[in-house]
Amino acid sequence: MNEIRVFSPATVANLSCGFDILGACLDKVGDELVVRKTKKKGIVITKITGQELSKDITVNVAGVSALALLRETEVDCGFEIEIHKGVKPGSGIGSSAASSAGSVFAINQLLGKPYSNKELIKFAMEGEKAACGSLIADNVAAALLGGFTFVKDGLNHDYFKLCTPPELFFTVIHPQIEIKTSDSRAILVKEVSLEKMTEQSANIGAFIAGLYTDNYELIARSMVDSVIEPLRSTLIPKFNDIKEISLSNGALACGISGSGPSIFALSKGFSTANDIALAMKKVYSKTDLEYDIHISPINDEGIKIIKVK
Amino acid sequence: MNEIRVFSPATVANLSCGFDILGACLDKVGDELVVRKTKKKGIVITKITGQELSKDITVNVAGVSALALLRETEVDCGFEIEIHKGVKPGSGIGSSAASSAGSVFAINQLLGKPYSNKELIKFAMEGEKAACGSLIADNVAAALLGGFTFVKDGLNHDYFKLCTPPELFFTVIHPQIEIKTSDSRAILVKEVSLEKMTEQSANIGAFIAGLYTDNYELIARSMVDSVIEPLRSTLIPKFNDIKEISLSNGALACGISGSGPSIFALSKGFSTANDIALAMKKVYSKTDLEYDIHISPINDEGIKIIKVK
Repeated sequence: MNEIRVFSPATVANLSCGFDILGACLDKVGDELVVRKTKKKGIVITKITGQELSKDITVNVAGVSALALLRETEVDCGFEIEIHKGVKPGSGIGSSAASSAGSVFAINQLLGKPYSNKELIKFAMEGEKAACGSLIADNVAAALLGGFTFVKDGLNHDYFKLCTPPELFFTVIHPQIEIKTSDSRAILVKEVSLEKMTEQSANIGAFIAGLYTDNYELIARSMVDSVIEPLRSTLIPKFNDIKEISLSNGALACGISGSGPSIFALSKGFSTANDIALAMKKVYSKTDLEYDIHISPINDEGIKIIKVK
Repeated sequence: MNEIRVFSPATVANLSCGFDILGACLDKVGDELVVRKTKKKGIVITKITGQELSKDITVNVAGVSALALLRETEVDCGFEIEIHKGVKPGSGIGSSAASSAGSVFAINQLLGKPYSNKELIKFAMEGEKAACGSLIADNVAAALLGGFTFVKDGLNHDYFKLCTPPELFFTVIHPQIEIKTSDSRAILVKEVSLEKMTEQSANIGAFIAGLYTDNYELIARSMVDSVIEPLRSTLIPKFNDIKEISLSNGALACGISGSGPSIFALSKGFSTANDIALAMKKVYSKTDLEYDIHISPINDEGIKIIKVK
């Protein structure tokens, strides 16, 4: 195998009740990366489509994560990377994660899989650090492991895949405004009350129990965030309207995807997810906002191989 | 059925990672209650053994919970209650919960079970309120549902049983000092950092995932409490020594039971639980402290019927 084309999916982090620890993997929306072995050692980004991004491998997250992998791996070849961006940077659905996870996944395949997908997370996290300044694992773990993923302790590489109950769909709307992760972090409070801590603990615990027992009602009433969402949602136009209309159209839950501005709704079955998409569109169509909208089942597989040569 | 004798178990709340939301049900150690139907309406506590406690039904938690049940239930008889205390008040293993849950369980049986065990929790919580001033559900839910239990939102009666992985044993040591729940609440901080909140969320979420996947390593590294334990443990003699020796003798985890002073260790298999008990004893035998020690499997059933007439 000398060349591989992969689909590297967008991801939804936080999921209301799991700030910095929960992630879910989408399908349909993502980046495509083509990676080719070269005789000349080193990494070169040869082509980027879909977005204007740097080809400098110490700046572009796909280069940064690839370099992290090669620092720990003996190889007698180099790699050319083409990046076809399907996820817009700053959208809140793991744009940098898709590229940084995709590149290490592809290189690992070309090398005969010396690493498990889980082991690749630490390299992909270096890409995340280049993008947002910290070693965040939630989006890259979701992209590499698929399904719902949990980051117990990112810095100590303690993350794992949860189970994936059937029939769940995401509807994600991305209003075309950019919120920098650093800005959406700056708006957060530094301290919360013990009662809020207990409430958040109760929500994440119940959510996990709901996942493992296919209890959709429990999942729905656990995806609540009374700490982060009230602050960050002020940065997102019409957040409350989108949330209200999603819930009244059958969403189990609705919240901010990652640090926003994308808003996700989770629902059971494609038909409900589609109704929610139509309802969300109605809200933004009354404004001047441009937006993208995606409907996606849970992608249980994570990054997918499209083609090898 | 005119008379019933029940065993109402002690319980371990909090379990390090689930402050106010997690509980587990013990076996072997608990109260016994005998409840008899009487022609004369009303509740009378006729006998209490094992402890000096008030027989006033508006003060004794078994009376308070029974009254709460009768307020919502039409009955044409009354009840006599005998309480044989096996759990010492102020021990931190749910002494009041055992009595308040036991009395409503027994009365419900005598009435032909108009309520599910889950529905009885709200009545038992009234007993807890009489004991500690607030409607705490974690211990009574564990006593009534058995196994590991989760309180998502006690005030709104949102609690449920988790699963019970096999082979788990508790070792619980109770140093004979009394810590009032109100005092151990007063020592708590009012606010925690966002990082601590995330850490606690990560621990409870991972613990629940560990339970549902029989992943004992994950359970072990999730039963961590860096918010409450550092404060409350200062009230418990030799806490750090007990914890250290428990972990070095094979405990998956060790922490404060409820608001203390009892200390629990969780381990896999009776033999390890017994080793831990011996090791714990060694620590306290070097002091003047008196103590009780219990080894118990998880009681998956909860309150048990001993005899009916």
